[in-house]
Amino acid sequence: MTEPENRGSRAAEQLRPVRITRNFTETTPGSVMMEAGKTMVLAAAAVERRIPPWMKEGTGWVTAEYSMMPGSSANRVRRDRYTSGRSREISRLIGRSLRSVVDLRAMGEMTITVDCDVIQADGGTRTAAVTAGWVALHDALAWAEAEGMVASSPLTERVAAVSVGLVEGEARLDLDYELDAAAAVDMNVVMTGEGRLVEVQGTAEGAPFSRGELDEMLDLAAAGIGRLGEAQREAVGWMGR
Amino acid sequence: MTEPENRGSRAAEQLRPVRITRNFTETTPGSVMMEAGKTMVLAAAAVERRIPPWMKEGTGWVTAEYSMMPGSSANRVRRDRYTSGRSREISRLIGRSLRSVVDLRAMGEMTITVDCDVIQADGGTRTAAVTAGWVALHDALAWAEAEGMVASSPLTERVAAVSVGLVEGEARLDLDYELDAAAAVDMNVVMTGEGRLVEVQGTAEGAPFSRGELDEMLDLAAAGIGRLGEAQREAVGWMGR
Amino acid sequence: MTEPENRGSRAAEQLRPVRITRNFTETTPGSVMMEAGKTMVLAAAAVERRIPPWMKEGTGWVTAEYSMMPGSSANRVRRDRYTSGRSREISRLIGRSLRSVVDLRAMGEMTITVDCDVIQADGGTRTAAVTAGWVALHDALAWAEAEGMVASSPLTERVAAVSVGLVEGEARLDLDYELDAAAAVDMNVVMTGEGRLVEVQGTAEGAPFSRGELDEMLDLAAAGIGRLGEAQREAVGWMGR
Amino acid sequence: MTEPENRGSRAAEQLRPVRITRNFTETTPGSVMMEAGKTMVLAAAAVERRIPPWMKEGTGWVTAEYSMMPGSSANRVRRDRYTSGRSREISRLIGRSLRSVVDLRAMGEMTITVDCDVIQADGGTRTAAVTAGWVALHDALAWAEAEGMVASSPLTERVAAVSVGLVEGEARLDLDYELDAAAAVDMNVVMTGEGRLVEVQGTAEGAPFSRGELDEMLDLAAAGIGRLGEAQREAVGWMGR
Amino acid sequence: MTEPENRGSRAAEQLRPVRITRNFTETTPGSVMMEAGKTMVLAAAAVERRIPPWMKEGTGWVTAEYSMMPGSSANRVRRDRYTSGRSREISRLIGRSLRSVVDLRAMGEMTITVDCDVIQADGGTRTAAVTAGWVALHDALAWAEAEGMVASSPLTERVAAVSVGLVEGEARLDLDYELDAAAAVDMNVVMTGEGRLVEVQGTAEGAPFSRGELDEMLDLAAAGIGRLGEAQREAVGWMGR
Amino acid sequence: MTEPENRGSRAAEQLRPVRITRNFTETTPGSVMMEAGKTMVLAAAAVERRIPPWMKEGTGWVTAEYSMMPGSSANRVRRDRYTSGRSREISRLIGRSLRSVVDLRAMGEMTITVDCDVIQADGGTRTAAVTAGWVALHDALAWAEAEGMVASSPLTERVAAVSVGLVEGEARLDLDYELDAAAAVDMNVVMTGEGRLVEVQGTAEGAPFSRGELDEMLDLAAAGIGRLGEAQREAVGWMGR
Repeated sequence: MTEPENRGSRAAEQLRPVRITRNFTETTPGSVMMEAGKTMVLAAAAVERRIPPWMKEGTGWVTAEYSMMPGSSANRVRRDRYTSGRSREISRLIGRSLRSVVDLRAMGEMTITVDCDVIQADGGTRTAAVTAGWVALHDALAWAEAEGMVASSPLTERVAAVSVGLVEGEARLDLDYELDAAAAVDMNVVMTGEGRLVEVQGTAEGAPFSRGELDEMLDLAAAGIGRLGEAQREAVGWMGR
Repeated sequence: MTEPENRGSRAAEQLRPVRITRNFTETTPGSVMMEAGKTMVLAAAAVERRIPPWMKEGTGWVTAEYSMMPGSSANRVRRDRYTSGRSREISRLIGRSLRSVVDLRAMGEMTITVDCDVIQADGGTRTAAVTAGWVALHDALAWAEAEGMVASSPLTERVAAVSVGLVEGEARLDLDYELDAAAAVDMNVVMTGEGRLVEVQGTAEGAPFSRGELDEMLDLAAAGIGRLGEAQREAVGWMGR
Repeated sequence: MTEPENRGSRAAEQLRPVRITRNFTETTPGSVMMEAGKTMVLAAAAVERRIPPWMKEGTGWVTAEYSMMPGSSANRVRRDRYTSGRSREISRLIGRSLRSVVDLRAMGEMTITVDCDVIQADGGTRTAAVTAGWVALHDALAWAEAEGMVASSPLTERVAAVSVGLVEGEARLDLDYELDAAAAVDMNVVMTGEGRLVEVQGTAEGAPFSRGELDEMLDLAAAGIGRLGEAQREAVGWMGR
Repeated sequence: MTEPENRGSRAAEQLRPVRITRNFTETTPGSVMMEAGKTMVLAAAAVERRIPPWMKEGTGWVTAEYSMMPGSSANRVRRDRYTSGRSREISRLIGRSLRSVVDLRAMGEMTITVDCDVIQADGGTRTAAVTAGWVALHDALAWAEAEGMVASSPLTERVAAVSVGLVEGEARLDLDYELDAAAAVDMNVVMTGEGRLVEVQGTAEGAPFSRGELDEMLDLAAAGIGRLGEAQREAVGWMGR
Repeated sequence: MTEPENRGSRAAEQLRPVRITRNFTETTPGSVMMEAGKTMVLAAAAVERRIPPWMKEGTGWVTAEYSMMPGSSANRVRRDRYTSGRSREISRLIGRSLRSVVDLRAMGEMTITVDCDVIQADGGTRTAAVTAGWVALHDALAWAEAEGMVASSPLTERVAAVSVGLVEGEARLDLDYELDAAAAVDMNVVMTGEGRLVEVQGTAEGAPFSRGELDEMLDLAAAGIGRLGEAQREAVGWMGR
Repeated sequence: MTEPENRGSRAAEQLRPVRITRNFTETTPGSVMMEAGKTMVLAAAAVERRIPPWMKEGTGWVTAEYSMMPGSSANRVRRDRYTSGRSREISRLIGRSLRSVVDLRAMGEMTITVDCDVIQADGGTRTAAVTAGWVALHDALAWAEAEGMVASSPLTERVAAVSVGLVEGEARLDLDYELDAAAAVDMNVVMTGEGRLVEVQGTAEGAPFSRGELDEMLDLAAAGIGRLGEAQREAVGWMGR
């Protein structure tokens, strides 16, 4: 429970060190531990041969659940947290992001649930969950293909996410807890491999922001997501975008 | 339960007709019915002389709760909906937006809860809730000032919101249900009276979007919010921004 | 939030001014705003082509849900109130009252849910909900008939309700909040168009009451319900009882 | 699980055999098993030296909770039933009835909770709960007096209850399950030892009823409650009304 | 609410007086009141012609629910207690114990739910629930056999349970509340008619215990369960083990 | 999601390979990943300077919460599982086991919550949680000592746990999923460093078991726990028993 070390040395446009570990467990076909600095997220993608009752027959579904583990924060997180507004909101964001790169009709009748559990929280947990979630989803779909459950993977491209913000008037990439606490604006950006936007969620926690500041942050995010994409491609040997 | 009439005639950059009715009830100091086309939201701002246990002493709090009434949609909305992820997420957005224009320290120890109940849903309910919520908050703070609970109103400026989207490749302002269902991208923008951004929430429901399309939508939103601001100023006689 | 004006001038056997507005929204086939003095109840009747699993096949069902909106009272009403004993008890009363004038077997397999949401509470909300609920139910059944869902309306007669009480030893009709707070006995009476009783719920909040006092209150209620029936007949052009 | 025997032989104005057993357990100061025919209700009155937070200081409180035990009915009753609307509604009725004969101000700061659990249900469980609840409350207050918690018992008079109904056009006293199922009207009447009304709850399950029928049922109820009062007086040696 | 009398006189290897009353109610085919000293447990076995969705077709199921009634303890037990960890844990123990002596495959598609409600708690309620539960289960299966629902009873042998403990260094049989509070170790033992173990649950509440002490306690338990078995055999006329 | 490899080669009295990793995260003072074969449990011990309201002043409290992560099993585990009977029962077992080796009075007013989350489940998760939980508790208490929150560690000795069972008539140590599924009897044994018993929980899943078989299983467990103790001592450098 030592205090996080000083991060002042990281440049404004620099990502924290990223590490992606596949097959963290054997129980789910996709099981990915992602570390971004001290932030640790375990993404587990489970495959079920059923779809929600409200779905059209013949199509598939991808959903996500995000939760912070009790020990992930210096202040213990209560276990019923999943029902909190914040966890639900983030779960919905992850689900939408992953579905944006899957052809649900080509997927056939199955549901993939990507559980994103935060093992250690040091800022950027929801964006790490999207980035790790895509790797877990990739592995689950590859497994389904190997099992003959789908003819070919319905994954159309990559998707990854990063946070950016305005800290003391300066646009900063990849906010850790310390930067996040100091940020006047906090923005999460989700982009596909082709560089198109899936989600832009900018929130003024302190003072509102101008269009110019928004543009600066979007530029930083695009560059950062490009580098995260490299890490994803390397991790799974992805040839597409 | 007639089908909504054809709206094709409204121009891409045109708002639906807006009507703001203050003092809809007498029970709460702020009580505002806002109509934007067929969308009807009742915003009620209640004042309580207490603050949440986790707040710093001496400061105030503004929070919001959003809910759809059972009869607000052609498909009856179940009454336990408030606990759904969507309602919680929207409640948090409204609360953040309203707090961005209040000086909580100058407010003193009181909580204002702005309940936003959707009477009729025809698209844009969350943004109407922000716009109406500001009027209800204004009236509640004016009442508190008249009651001697605050020395002067801690309201620093206006805040309003609108939805924009991409429909068949074209940027459209103020999506009603029909347009929303057809939109590939749905974005909610919250801006202050000074024209600065409080929230930008863009989501690709269908295909991802480019930076150019994002800019187009933000331009439309800024113009629309300017006109909603006129309606707010007129309704309450606000002299500031 | 001005205090309710002095009502001492209203005679013991006089109703508060009644206003019934149909088609308050377009989303549900029955949508009725009823005002009785300052009390405002919105009754929305939704039609679903299914029946509860425990129902006999081929018959219909009518049910009701009553809830106070957060801003309906000077003390904000918490949103989870519907699960309270009081709301459930009142919902059951409204449902039973409405079912007493519907031929469920002639209705066919459909469920009508009448949501009664109190917009402003100044006494007599449950009885206003019955009276308004009947109008909303009438309109929903007329819509179902027009849609060809039922051959002819299964509505057999009218039903309406009013509160009476003993205030300082005197029987009073149509208690507002002020009278209700002062009443030793509070009674709700539900009667059909033919003048027969559907529900009699008399409760001694203070001192118990005699048979003579019961009779006095029932006489007042019968007269008041007669006049409410006039308002209902006029509102929908009902020719029957 | 033999079918209940034919009860056709009981006259319209006759009560079922009543048995009141005090001190059924030793754990609570009031513990009463009441049998009315096959209906069995266990009423346990517990005393706590605290009052609800919303009560005025210096006064006492009496409350009740009614629940059907899982095995009380031929169709097993689910254990979460207490949260159902019916159980809550009945709990509120019992609480109001018992409070009508207690001087809460003379009681001092204590809460008596009367738990009424239905061991076997054969109609009339809520009225048996009121009648048995009064005996348990009496014993709890006598215990509190003996313990020096109150100077003298704040119990002002007796209260008892019975059901009546209209079965095939005839007014009947004390409905068992079979009669209740056949009844067009079901009414519960609560009266004090002085013969004044505390609650009148008449409900038309089938056809609405006339004022004349109401009067007939009230006459039957008054006579029945008189005889239940005899049983209560005998059980506890009550000298007052 | 007198304090329980001194029990010091009971020998270490002596059971409290046992009384088993069958057919306590008529509503369920098995309905057994068991008294062990002051402990009173009502076991009601209900039969339903359905099985849980996760069961294999053609087999039966036996389950149990344990709950303390509000008045069963000198400190009133809150009614939502069934959801507590303790009640769930005990319910599972009773269910497993009863299933150990039923041939579920020979039972056919039906579920027997044995509700064990503690009327008065003076120690050993869970073991009394197992012992009484077996009698109720026996009677429910006999009823099912008489009804032709099963060809022959699938009950293979008896099962009964008792608590033992270490009190002041001495092994004691059948702990009442007073002994239980003083015990350093508390153990519940469930055995079949053939003298084989179904459950052994020993817990050091104070100091851990040795293998020798464990053996001593198991010896006492075996003897006590033998005598409880006599009471069960006598109660139902069981010829088998 | 390959099937677990054949384990037939492991001898009846052999443990699976054990690995204990301390400081798995930095957020909690105790953070231990324990692997026993494929079973992976993360134990996080958090320290809070408060005690439950029902605790005696001046003493401390140790509690535990056990939960299976959604991806820990080949069949996805639903996230609300913590409220299930099984999770609650296991949480209680872990808490009791850890408290048995802590001097709560010497601990001072603080609560240590040991969260045991199963990352991968292959049998023996509850016993791994006890063994790992002790290491996390040790580290949390060492941290509290370093912080000056306690004068000296209130940890009195070690505690560890293992499962044993009867598989095809043979007593087996440390059941993995495959063995557990085949076991007729499943027993969890918790022992202190001094070799005394804290918990013995033996359950006949299939056929009941004899005293002789119980003894055999207890012998195996004692030997296995001795070896787990070695791993604990080595991990933290514990000099005591």
